[in-house]
Amino acid sequence: MENKRPLILVSNDDGVSAKGISEFIKFLRPLGDIVVMAPDSPRSGSGCAITVPVPVHYQLVRQEVGLTIYKCSGTPADCVKLALHTILDCTPDLVVAGINHGDNSGTSVHYSGTMGVAIEGCLKGIPSVGFSLCDHGANANFEPLKDFVRKIVTDVLREGLPPLVCLNVNFPNIPNFKGAKICEQAKGLWKKEWEPCPRLNDQNYFWLTGEFVNMDEENEQNDGWALANGYVAVTPILVDMTAYHYMDHLKQLLRV
Amino acid sequence: MENKRPLILVSNDDGVSAKGISEFIKFLRPLGDIVVMAPDSPRSGSGCAITVPVPVHYQLVRQEVGLTIYKCSGTPADCVKLALHTILDCTPDLVVAGINHGDNSGTSVHYSGTMGVAIEGCLKGIPSVGFSLCDHGANANFEPLKDFVRKIVTDVLREGLPPLVCLNVNFPNIPNFKGAKICEQAKGLWKKEWEPCPRLNDQNYFWLTGEFVNMDEENEQNDGWALANGYVAVTPILVDMTAYHYMDHLKQLLRV
Repeated sequence: MENKRPLILVSNDDGVSAKGISEFIKFLRPLGDIVVMAPDSPRSGSGCAITVPVPVHYQLVRQEVGLTIYKCSGTPADCVKLALHTILDCTPDLVVAGINHGDNSGTSVHYSGTMGVAIEGCLKGIPSVGFSLCDHGANANFEPLKDFVRKIVTDVLREGLPPLVCLNVNFPNIPNFKGAKICEQAKGLWKKEWEPCPRLNDQNYFWLTGEFVNMDEENEQNDGWALANGYVAVTPILVDMTAYHYMDHLKQLLRV
Repeated sequence: MENKRPLILVSNDDGVSAKGISEFIKFLRPLGDIVVMAPDSPRSGSGCAITVPVPVHYQLVRQEVGLTIYKCSGTPADCVKLALHTILDCTPDLVVAGINHGDNSGTSVHYSGTMGVAIEGCLKGIPSVGFSLCDHGANANFEPLKDFVRKIVTDVLREGLPPLVCLNVNFPNIPNFKGAKICEQAKGLWKKEWEPCPRLNDQNYFWLTGEFVNMDEENEQNDGWALANGYVAVTPILVDMTAYHYMDHLKQLLRV
Protein backbone atom coordinates (compact mmCIF):
# COMPACT_ATOMS: atom_id res chain seq x y z
CA MET A 1 0.00 0.00 0.00
CA GLU A 2 1.26 3.43 -0.91
CA ASN A 3 2.31 5.55 2.05
CA LYS A 4 1.12 8.88 0.71
CA ARG A 5 2.85 12.05 1.88
CA PRO A 6 0.61 14.57 3.62
CA LEU A 7 -0.58 17.53 1.54
CA ILE A 8 -0.02 20.87 3.30
CA LEU A 9 -1.57 24.14 2.10
CA VAL A 10 0.46 27.19 3.15
CA SER A 11 -0.46 30.87 3.15
CA ASN A 12 0.39 34.01 5.10
CA ASP A 13 -0.42 37.71 5.32
CA ASP A 14 3.04 39.21 4.82
CA GLY A 15 2.93 38.15 1.18
CA VAL A 16 4.65 35.53 -0.96
CA SER A 17 8.01 37.33 -0.86
CA ALA A 18 8.32 37.53 2.93
CA LYS A 19 11.24 35.81 4.64
CA GLY A 20 8.80 34.24 7.11
CA ILE A 21 7.04 32.15 4.48
CA SER A 22 10.22 30.99 2.73
CA GLU A 23 11.77 29.87 6.02
CA PHE A 24 8.44 28.21 6.89
CA ILE A 25 8.48 26.26 3.60
CA LYS A 26 12.01 25.02 4.34
CA PHE A 27 10.86 23.76 7.75
CA LEU A 28 7.79 22.04 6.29
CA ARG A 29 9.23 20.31 3.20
CA PRO A 30 10.42 17.15 4.98
CA LEU A 31 6.90 16.71 6.42
CA GLY A 32 4.79 16.63 3.25
CA ASP A 33 4.01 17.95 -0.19
CA ILE A 34 3.61 21.71 -0.03
CA VAL A 35 1.26 23.95 -2.00
CA VAL A 36 1.59 27.68 -1.33
CA MET A 37 -1.09 30.24 -2.25
CA ALA A 38 -0.01 33.52 -0.71
CA PRO A 39 -0.93 37.18 -1.25
CA ASP A 40 1.15 38.94 -3.92
CA SER A 41 1.85 41.81 -1.50
CA PRO A 42 1.74 42.41 2.27
CA ARG A 43 -1.77 42.11 3.73
CA SER A 44 -1.18 42.62 7.44
CA GLY A 45 -4.32 43.39 9.43
CA SER A 46 -6.63 41.60 6.99
CA GLY A 47 -8.33 39.47 9.63
CA CYS A 48 -10.84 37.20 7.86
CA ALA A 49 -11.56 39.82 5.19
CA ILE A 50 -12.62 38.57 1.75
CA THR A 51 -12.52 40.40 -1.58
CA VAL A 52 -15.96 41.48 -2.76
CA PRO A 53 -15.73 44.44 -5.21
CA VAL A 54 -13.13 43.15 -7.71
CA PRO A 55 -12.18 39.76 -9.16
CA VAL A 56 -9.34 37.82 -7.57
CA HIS A 57 -6.43 36.61 -9.69
CA TYR A 58 -3.81 33.93 -9.07
CA GLN A 59 -0.62 32.99 -10.86
CA LEU A 60 1.96 30.19 -10.71
CA VAL A 61 5.29 31.39 -9.33
CA ARG A 62 7.35 28.19 -9.20
CA GLN A 63 6.96 24.44 -9.30
CA GLU A 64 9.35 21.63 -8.35
CA VAL A 65 8.94 18.13 -6.90
CA GLY A 66 6.89 18.39 -3.69
CA LEU A 67 6.51 22.18 -3.83
CA THR A 68 4.23 24.44 -5.86
CA ILE A 69 3.98 28.18 -5.20
CA TYR A 70 1.20 30.50 -6.38
CA LYS A 71 0.60 34.16 -5.65
CA CYS A 72 -2.83 35.72 -5.41
CA SER A 73 -4.25 39.25 -5.60
CA GLY A 74 -6.71 38.58 -2.76
CA THR A 75 -6.67 38.48 1.01
CA PRO A 76 -5.22 35.64 3.10
CA ALA A 77 -8.73 34.11 3.50
CA ASP A 78 -9.27 34.41 -0.28
CA CYS A 79 -6.00 32.49 -0.80
CA VAL A 80 -7.32 29.50 1.13
CA LYS A 81 -10.74 29.59 -0.57
CA LEU A 82 -9.20 29.93 -4.04
CA ALA A 83 -6.56 27.20 -3.55
CA LEU A 84 -9.23 24.74 -2.37
CA HIS A 85 -11.43 25.61 -5.34
CA THR A 86 -8.97 25.89 -8.22
CA ILE A 87 -5.57 24.34 -7.49
CA LEU A 88 -6.04 21.32 -5.27
CA ASP A 89 -7.74 18.20 -6.52
CA CYS A 90 -8.11 16.79 -3.01
CA THR A 91 -8.61 18.30 0.43
CA PRO A 92 -5.28 19.08 2.11
CA ASP A 93 -4.38 17.33 5.36
CA LEU A 94 -3.41 20.62 6.94
CA VAL A 95 -3.70 24.37 6.40
CA VAL A 96 -0.89 26.44 7.92
CA ALA A 97 -0.19 30.16 7.96
CA GLY A 98 2.95 32.17 8.54
CA ILE A 99 5.42 32.41 9.82
CA ASN A 100 4.15 35.89 10.56
CA HIS A 101 6.57 38.75 11.14
CA GLY A 102 5.00 40.02 14.39
CA ASP A 103 2.89 39.03 17.39
CA ASN A 104 -0.65 37.69 16.85
CA SER A 105 -1.45 36.74 20.44
CA GLY A 106 -4.36 37.90 22.61
CA THR A 107 -7.24 39.66 20.89
CA SER A 108 -5.05 40.31 17.81
CA VAL A 109 -6.57 37.10 16.43
CA HIS A 110 -9.48 39.26 15.22
CA TYR A 111 -7.19 41.48 13.11
CA SER A 112 -4.63 38.90 12.03
CA GLY A 113 -4.51 37.78 8.41
CA THR A 114 -2.34 34.88 9.58
CA MET A 115 -5.18 33.71 11.80
CA GLY A 116 -7.60 34.58 8.96
CA VAL A 117 -5.93 31.74 7.03
CA ALA A 118 -6.22 29.34 9.97
CA ILE A 119 -9.86 30.30 10.68
CA GLU A 120 -10.75 29.84 7.00
CA GLY A 121 -9.10 26.40 6.91
CA CYS A 122 -10.91 25.47 10.11
CA LEU A 123 -14.30 26.63 8.75
CA LYS A 124 -13.63 24.29 5.81
CA GLY A 125 -13.15 21.38 8.24
CA ILE A 126 -9.36 21.11 7.81
CA PRO A 127 -6.92 21.05 10.76
CA SER A 128 -5.34 24.52 10.70
CA VAL A 129 -2.55 26.33 12.54
CA GLY A 130 -1.20 29.90 12.41
CA PHE A 131 2.42 30.60 13.40
CA SER A 132 3.80 34.01 14.39
CA LEU A 133 7.11 35.34 15.69
CA CYS A 134 7.14 38.44 17.92
CA ASP A 135 9.57 40.28 15.64
CA HIS A 136 8.31 42.63 12.93
CA GLY A 137 11.71 42.94 11.27
CA ALA A 138 11.86 41.98 7.59
CA ASN A 139 15.05 40.02 8.37
CA ALA A 140 13.81 38.38 11.59
CA ASN A 141 15.57 35.15 12.61
CA PHE A 142 13.18 32.21 12.27
CA GLU A 143 15.80 29.46 12.76
CA PRO A 144 15.12 28.97 16.50
CA LEU A 145 11.48 28.10 15.64
CA LYS A 146 12.29 25.16 13.38
CA ASP A 147 12.03 22.26 15.83
CA PHE A 148 8.84 23.59 17.48
CA VAL A 149 7.17 24.22 14.12
CA ARG A 150 8.01 20.71 12.94
CA LYS A 151 6.85 19.11 16.19
CA ILE A 152 3.51 20.93 16.23
CA VAL A 153 2.85 20.25 12.54
CA THR A 154 3.75 16.57 12.98
CA ASP A 155 1.49 16.24 16.04
CA VAL A 156 -1.46 17.93 14.32
CA LEU A 157 -0.99 15.86 11.13
CA ARG A 158 -1.06 12.71 13.27
CA GLU A 159 -3.85 13.60 15.72
CA GLY A 160 -6.00 16.16 13.88
CA LEU A 161 -7.95 18.87 15.70
CA PRO A 162 -11.58 18.86 16.89
CA PRO A 163 -14.32 20.48 14.76
CA LEU A 164 -14.28 24.29 14.82
CA VAL A 165 -10.95 24.50 16.67
CA CYS A 166 -7.69 25.79 15.17
CA LEU A 167 -4.38 26.74 16.79
CA ASN A 168 -2.65 30.09 17.24
CA VAL A 169 1.08 29.59 17.91
CA ASN A 170 3.21 32.61 18.89
CA PHE A 171 6.96 32.57 19.53
CA PRO A 172 8.76 35.10 21.75
CA ASN A 173 11.65 36.95 20.13
CA ILE A 174 14.45 35.14 21.99
CA PRO A 175 16.98 32.52 20.83
CA ASN A 176 16.08 29.82 23.41
CA PHE A 177 12.49 29.02 24.39
CA LYS A 178 11.69 27.65 27.87
CA GLY A 179 9.17 25.25 26.31
CA ALA A 180 5.58 25.48 25.05
CA LYS A 181 2.53 26.45 27.09
CA ILE A 182 -1.13 25.82 26.24
CA CYS A 183 -2.75 29.24 26.76
CA GLU A 184 -5.95 31.24 26.74
CA GLN A 185 -6.19 34.55 24.88
CA ALA A 186 -4.89 37.45 26.96
CA LYS A 187 -7.71 39.87 27.75
CA GLY A 188 -6.63 43.37 26.96
CA LEU A 189 -6.99 46.55 25.04
CA TRP A 190 -5.17 48.21 22.19
CA LYS A 191 -4.30 51.76 23.28
CA LYS A 192 -2.67 54.83 21.68
CA GLU A 193 -3.84 53.46 18.36
CA TRP A 194 -3.44 56.51 16.12
CA GLU A 195 -0.45 58.64 15.23
CA PRO A 196 -1.22 61.91 13.44
CA CYS A 197 0.35 62.40 10.02
CA PRO A 198 -1.07 65.76 8.85
CA ARG A 199 -0.95 66.46 5.13
CA LEU A 200 -0.56 70.12 4.17
CA ASN A 201 -3.34 71.79 6.18
CA ASP A 202 -5.44 68.71 6.77
CA GLN A 203 -5.06 67.37 10.34
CA ASN A 204 -7.38 64.41 9.78
CA TYR A 205 -4.80 61.87 8.59
CA PHE A 206 -3.64 59.15 10.99
CA TRP A 207 -1.41 56.08 10.91
CA LEU A 208 -2.78 53.07 12.77
CA THR A 209 -0.32 51.98 15.44
CA GLY A 210 -0.78 51.30 19.16
CA GLU A 211 0.25 49.04 21.96
CA PHE A 212 -1.58 46.07 23.41
CA VAL A 213 -2.16 46.39 27.16
CA ASN A 214 -2.63 42.96 28.78
CA MET A 215 -5.27 43.62 31.47
CA ASP A 216 -4.52 40.26 33.03
CA GLU A 217 -0.74 40.16 32.93
CA GLU A 218 -0.30 38.31 36.25
CA ASN A 219 -2.38 35.41 34.94
CA GLU A 220 0.04 32.66 33.92
CA GLN A 221 -2.64 31.04 31.77
CA ASN A 222 -2.67 33.66 29.03
CA ASP A 223 -0.57 33.89 25.90
CA GLY A 224 0.67 37.38 26.75
CA TRP A 225 2.18 36.04 29.98
CA ALA A 226 3.71 33.04 28.20
CA LEU A 227 5.42 35.22 25.58
CA ALA A 228 6.67 37.72 28.17
CA ASN A 229 8.17 34.84 30.13
CA GLY A 230 10.00 33.01 27.34
CA TYR A 231 7.48 30.32 26.40
CA VAL A 232 6.01 29.40 23.02
CA ALA A 233 2.29 30.24 23.40
CA VAL A 234 -0.12 27.70 21.86
CA THR A 235 -3.69 29.04 22.06
CA PRO A 236 -6.59 26.89 20.81
CA ILE A 237 -9.11 29.10 18.98
CA LEU A 238 -12.82 28.30 18.72
CA VAL A 239 -14.40 29.54 15.49
CA ASP A 240 -17.95 29.02 16.80
CA MET A 241 -18.35 32.45 18.42
CA THR A 242 -21.78 31.87 19.99
CA ALA A 243 -21.86 33.17 23.60
CA TYR A 244 -23.74 30.08 24.87
CA HIS A 245 -23.38 31.12 28.52
CA TYR A 246 -25.37 34.30 27.87
CA MET A 247 -28.31 32.90 25.89
CA ASP A 248 -30.70 32.37 28.82
CA HIS A 249 -30.02 35.78 30.32
CA LEU A 250 -30.49 37.41 26.91
CA LYS A 251 -33.91 35.74 26.57
CA GLN A 252 -34.94 37.46 29.79
CA LEU A 253 -33.39 40.78 28.81
CA LEU A 254 -35.26 40.91 25.50
CA ARG A 255 -38.32 39.09 26.92
CA VAL A 256 -38.45 36.61 24.02
CA MET B 1 -29.83 66.45 37.92
CA GLU B 2 -29.44 66.47 34.19
CA ASN B 3 -30.99 63.50 32.43
CA LYS B 4 -28.34 63.12 29.74
CA ARG B 5 -29.27 61.57 26.42
CA PRO B 6 -27.35 58.40 25.52
CA LEU B 7 -24.48 58.79 23.04
CA ILE B 8 -24.64 56.24 20.21
CA LEU B 9 -21.76 55.63 17.79
CA VAL B 10 -22.94 54.29 14.42
CA SER B 11 -20.97 52.68 11.60
CA ASN B 12 -21.51 50.11 8.85
CA ASP B 13 -19.74 48.33 6.01
CA ASP B 14 -21.93 49.37 3.08
CA GLY B 15 -20.58 52.92 3.34
CA VAL B 16 -21.93 56.27 4.48
CA SER B 17 -24.20 56.62 1.41
CA ALA B 18 -26.07 53.32 1.84
CA LYS B 19 -29.83 53.40 2.40
CA GLY B 20 -29.39 51.00 5.33
CA ILE B 21 -27.42 53.49 7.43
CA SER B 22 -29.68 56.46 6.70
CA GLU B 23 -32.79 54.47 7.64
CA PHE B 24 -30.94 53.23 10.74
CA ILE B 25 -30.13 56.81 11.78
CA LYS B 26 -33.83 57.75 11.47
CA PHE B 27 -34.79 54.84 13.72
CA LEU B 28 -32.12 55.73 16.31
CA ARG B 29 -32.52 59.51 16.59
CA PRO B 30 -35.32 59.47 19.19
CA LEU B 31 -33.16 57.24 21.40
CA GLY B 32 -30.03 59.36 21.79
CA ASP B 33 -27.40 61.65 20.31
CA ILE B 34 -25.93 60.06 17.21
CA VAL B 35 -22.37 60.20 15.92
CA VAL B 36 -21.73 58.40 12.64
CA MET B 37 -18.27 57.42 11.40
CA ALA B 38 -18.78 55.26 8.34
CA PRO B 39 -16.58 54.13 5.42
CA ASP B 40 -16.58 56.51 2.45
CA SER B 41 -17.32 53.59 0.08
CA PRO B 42 -18.67 50.05 0.35
CA ARG B 43 -16.49 47.75 2.43
CA SER B 44 -18.44 44.49 2.44
CA GLY B 45 -16.46 41.47 3.53
CA SER B 46 -14.03 43.49 5.66
CA GLY B 47 -14.45 41.40 8.80
CA CYS B 48 -12.32 42.94 11.55
CA ALA B 49 -9.68 44.11 9.05
CA ILE B 50 -7.67 47.22 9.95
CA THR B 51 -5.69 49.53 7.65
CA VAL B 52 -1.95 49.06 7.99
CA PRO B 53 -0.10 50.20 4.82
CA VAL B 54 -1.60 53.70 4.32
CA PRO B 55 -2.84 56.50 6.60
CA VAL B 56 -6.56 56.70 7.36
CA HIS B 57 -8.43 59.95 6.72
CA TYR B 58 -11.78 61.20 8.04
CA GLN B 59 -13.97 64.13 7.11
CA LEU B 60 -17.09 65.84 8.45
CA VAL B 61 -20.11 65.27 6.20
CA ARG B 62 -22.93 66.98 8.12
CA GLN B 63 -23.75 68.29 11.57
CA GLU B 64 -27.09 69.22 13.16
CA VAL B 65 -28.51 69.06 16.69
CA GLY B 66 -28.15 65.49 17.98
CA LEU B 67 -26.54 64.15 14.81
CA THR B 68 -22.99 64.37 13.43
CA ILE B 69 -21.87 62.38 10.40
CA TYR B 70 -18.28 61.69 9.36
CA LYS B 71 -16.90 59.55 6.55
CA CYS B 72 -13.62 57.69 6.75
CA SER B 73 -11.22 56.13 4.25
CA GLY B 74 -10.63 53.09 6.46
CA THR B 75 -12.36 49.82 7.26
CA PRO B 76 -15.42 49.47 9.53
CA ALA B 77 -13.16 48.54 12.48
CA ASP B 78 -10.94 51.56 11.72
CA CYS B 79 -14.06 53.76 11.88
CA VAL B 80 -14.78 52.70 15.46
CA LYS B 81 -11.16 53.06 16.54
CA LEU B 82 -10.79 56.47 14.90
CA ALA B 83 -14.09 57.87 16.23
CA LEU B 84 -13.18 56.85 19.78
CA HIS B 85 -9.74 58.43 19.42
CA THR B 86 -10.45 61.64 17.54
CA ILE B 87 -14.11 62.66 17.54
CA LEU B 88 -15.68 61.62 20.82
CA ASP B 89 -14.71 63.30 24.08
CA CYS B 90 -16.40 60.60 26.13
CA THR B 91 -17.01 56.88 25.69
CA PRO B 92 -20.30 56.22 23.86
CA ASP B 93 -23.05 54.29 25.62
CA LEU B 94 -23.50 52.04 22.62
CA VAL B 95 -21.80 51.09 19.35
CA VAL B 96 -24.15 49.92 16.60
CA ALA B 97 -23.56 48.80 13.02
CA GLY B 98 -25.80 48.60 10.01
CA ILE B 99 -28.33 48.18 8.95
CA ASN B 100 -26.48 45.87 6.60
CA HIS B 101 -27.83 45.12 3.14
CA GLY B 102 -27.54 41.33 3.35
CA ASP B 103 -27.40 38.36 5.72
CA ASN B 104 -24.65 38.17 8.36
CA SER B 105 -25.86 35.10 10.23
CA GLY B 106 -24.01 31.85 10.92
CA THR B 107 -20.28 31.81 10.31
CA SER B 108 -20.53 34.97 8.18
CA VAL B 109 -19.69 36.83 11.39
CA HIS B 110 -16.02 36.19 10.55
CA TYR B 111 -16.30 37.99 7.19
CA SER B 112 -18.80 40.68 8.11
CA GLY B 113 -17.67 44.29 8.35
CA THR B 114 -20.94 44.99 10.16
CA MET B 115 -19.92 42.56 12.87
CA GLY B 116 -16.35 43.95 12.62
CA VAL B 117 -17.83 47.19 14.00
CA ALA B 118 -19.66 45.37 16.81
CA ILE B 119 -16.62 43.23 17.71
CA GLU B 120 -14.39 46.34 17.79
CA GLY B 121 -16.85 48.17 20.06
CA CYS B 122 -17.04 45.11 22.29
CA LEU B 123 -13.24 44.79 22.50
CA LYS B 124 -13.24 48.41 23.71
CA GLY B 125 -15.67 47.47 26.49
CA ILE B 126 -18.73 49.18 24.99
CA PRO B 127 -22.11 47.41 24.52
CA SER B 128 -22.28 46.74 20.78
CA VAL B 129 -24.83 45.39 18.32
CA GLY B 130 -24.75 44.66 14.57
CA PHE B 131 -28.00 44.71 12.55
CA SER B 132 -28.48 43.09 9.13
CA LEU B 133 -31.39 42.55 6.76
CA CYS B 134 -31.40 39.48 4.47
CA ASP B 135 -31.82 41.62 1.35
CA HIS B 136 -28.80 42.73 -0.68
CA GLY B 137 -30.82 45.19 -2.77
CA ALA B 138 -29.64 48.81 -2.72
CA ASN B 139 -33.28 49.86 -2.27
CA ALA B 140 -34.20 47.23 0.36
CA ASN B 141 -37.18 48.06 2.60
CA PHE B 142 -35.98 48.63 6.17
CA GLU B 143 -39.27 50.03 7.52
CA PRO B 144 -40.52 46.69 8.98
CA LEU B 145 -37.37 46.57 11.17
CA LYS B 146 -38.00 49.86 12.96
CA ASP B 147 -39.79 48.67 16.09
CA PHE B 148 -37.46 45.71 16.65
CA VAL B 149 -34.36 47.88 16.19
CA ARG B 150 -35.68 50.46 18.67
CA LYS B 151 -36.65 47.80 21.21
CA ILE B 152 -33.28 46.02 21.09
CA VAL B 153 -31.32 49.29 21.27
CA THR B 154 -33.46 50.51 24.19
CA ASP B 155 -33.03 47.21 26.07
CA VAL B 156 -29.25 47.16 25.56
CA LEU B 157 -28.91 50.84 26.55
CA ARG B 158 -30.82 50.08 29.75
CA GLU B 159 -29.26 46.70 30.68
CA GLY B 160 -25.83 46.72 29.02
CA LEU B 161 -24.12 43.53 27.87
CA PRO B 162 -21.62 41.30 29.69
CA PRO B 163 -17.87 41.71 29.06
CA LEU B 164 -16.69 40.32 25.71
CA VAL B 165 -20.23 39.70 24.41
CA CYS B 166 -21.88 41.62 21.56
CA LEU B 167 -25.06 40.91 19.58
CA ASN B 168 -25.60 39.89 15.97
CA VAL B 169 -29.19 40.69 14.90
CA ASN B 170 -30.43 39.44 11.50
CA PHE B 171 -33.86 40.11 9.98
CA PRO B 172 -35.53 37.84 7.41
CA ASN B 173 -36.62 39.53 4.21
CA ILE B 174 -40.38 39.47 4.92
CA PRO B 175 -42.83 42.24 5.89
CA ASN B 176 -44.07 40.64 9.15
CA PHE B 177 -41.78 38.90 11.62
CA LYS B 178 -43.07 36.08 13.83
CA GLY B 179 -41.07 37.49 16.75
CA ALA B 180 -37.44 37.35 17.90
CA LYS B 181 -35.46 34.23 18.79
CA ILE B 182 -32.21 34.02 20.78
CA CYS B 183 -29.99 31.82 18.61
CA GLU B 184 -26.66 30.12 18.25
CA GLN B 185 -24.57 30.47 15.09
CA ALA B 186 -25.62 28.03 12.38
CA LYS B 187 -22.81 25.56 11.66
CA GLY B 188 -22.25 25.35 7.96
CA LEU B 189 -20.06 25.79 4.96
CA TRP B 190 -19.79 28.28 2.15
CA LYS B 191 -19.84 26.34 -1.14
CA LYS B 192 -19.50 27.18 -4.86
CA GLU B 193 -17.49 30.20 -3.79
CA TRP B 194 -15.87 31.22 -7.08
CA GLU B 195 -17.28 32.21 -10.43
CA PRO B 196 -14.80 32.34 -13.32
CA CYS B 197 -14.42 35.70 -15.10
CA PRO B 198 -11.63 35.06 -17.63
CA ARG B 199 -9.86 38.12 -19.04
CA LEU B 200 -8.58 37.76 -22.59
CA ASN B 201 -6.59 34.50 -22.43
CA ASP B 202 -6.11 34.42 -18.68
CA GLN B 203 -8.43 31.88 -16.99
CA ASN B 204 -7.20 32.67 -13.48
CA TYR B 205 -9.66 35.46 -12.64
CA PHE B 206 -12.58 34.71 -10.30
CA TRP B 207 -15.41 36.59 -8.61
CA LEU B 208 -16.06 35.60 -4.99
CA THR B 209 -19.66 34.45 -4.62
CA GLY B 210 -21.12 31.27 -3.08
CA GLU B 211 -23.96 29.93 -1.02
CA PHE B 212 -24.03 29.12 2.67
CA VAL B 213 -25.09 25.54 3.38
CA ASN B 214 -26.53 25.20 6.90
CA MET B 215 -25.28 21.75 8.01
CA ASP B 216 -27.69 21.83 10.93
CA GLU B 217 -30.85 23.17 9.33
CA GLU B 218 -33.26 21.05 11.40
CA ASN B 219 -31.90 22.57 14.61
CA GLU B 220 -34.38 25.22 15.75
CA GLN B 221 -31.71 26.82 17.94
CA ASN B 222 -29.64 28.27 15.12
CA ASP B 223 -29.93 31.62 13.39
CA GLY B 224 -30.22 30.04 9.94
CA TRP B 225 -33.33 28.15 11.07
CA ALA B 226 -34.81 31.28 12.69
CA LEU B 227 -34.38 33.36 9.52
CA ALA B 228 -35.75 30.60 7.27
CA ASN B 229 -38.81 30.40 9.52
CA GLY B 230 -39.70 34.08 9.79
CA TYR B 231 -38.04 35.05 13.08
CA VAL B 232 -35.63 37.88 13.87
CA ALA B 233 -32.41 36.04 14.85
CA VAL B 234 -30.54 37.51 17.84
CA THR B 235 -27.21 35.70 18.28
CA PRO B 236 -24.92 36.62 21.20
CA ILE B 237 -21.30 36.62 20.03
CA LEU B 238 -18.32 35.94 22.31
CA VAL B 239 -15.18 37.83 21.30
CA ASP B 240 -12.95 35.71 23.56
CA MET B 241 -12.22 32.95 21.04
CA THR B 242 -10.24 30.65 23.37
CA ALA B 243 -11.34 27.01 22.97
CA TYR B 244 -11.32 26.39 26.73
CA HIS B 245 -12.89 22.93 26.35
CA TYR B 246 -9.90 21.72 24.35
CA MET B 247 -7.02 23.01 26.49
CA ASP B 248 -6.48 19.83 28.56
CA HIS B 249 -6.60 17.55 25.55
CA LEU B 250 -4.18 19.81 23.67
CA LYS B 251 -1.71 19.59 26.57
CA GLN B 252 -1.70 15.80 26.14
CA LEU B 253 -1.49 16.00 22.35
CA LEU B 254 1.57 18.26 22.43
CA ARG B 255 2.91 16.65 25.63
CA VAL B 256 3.51 20.02 27.35
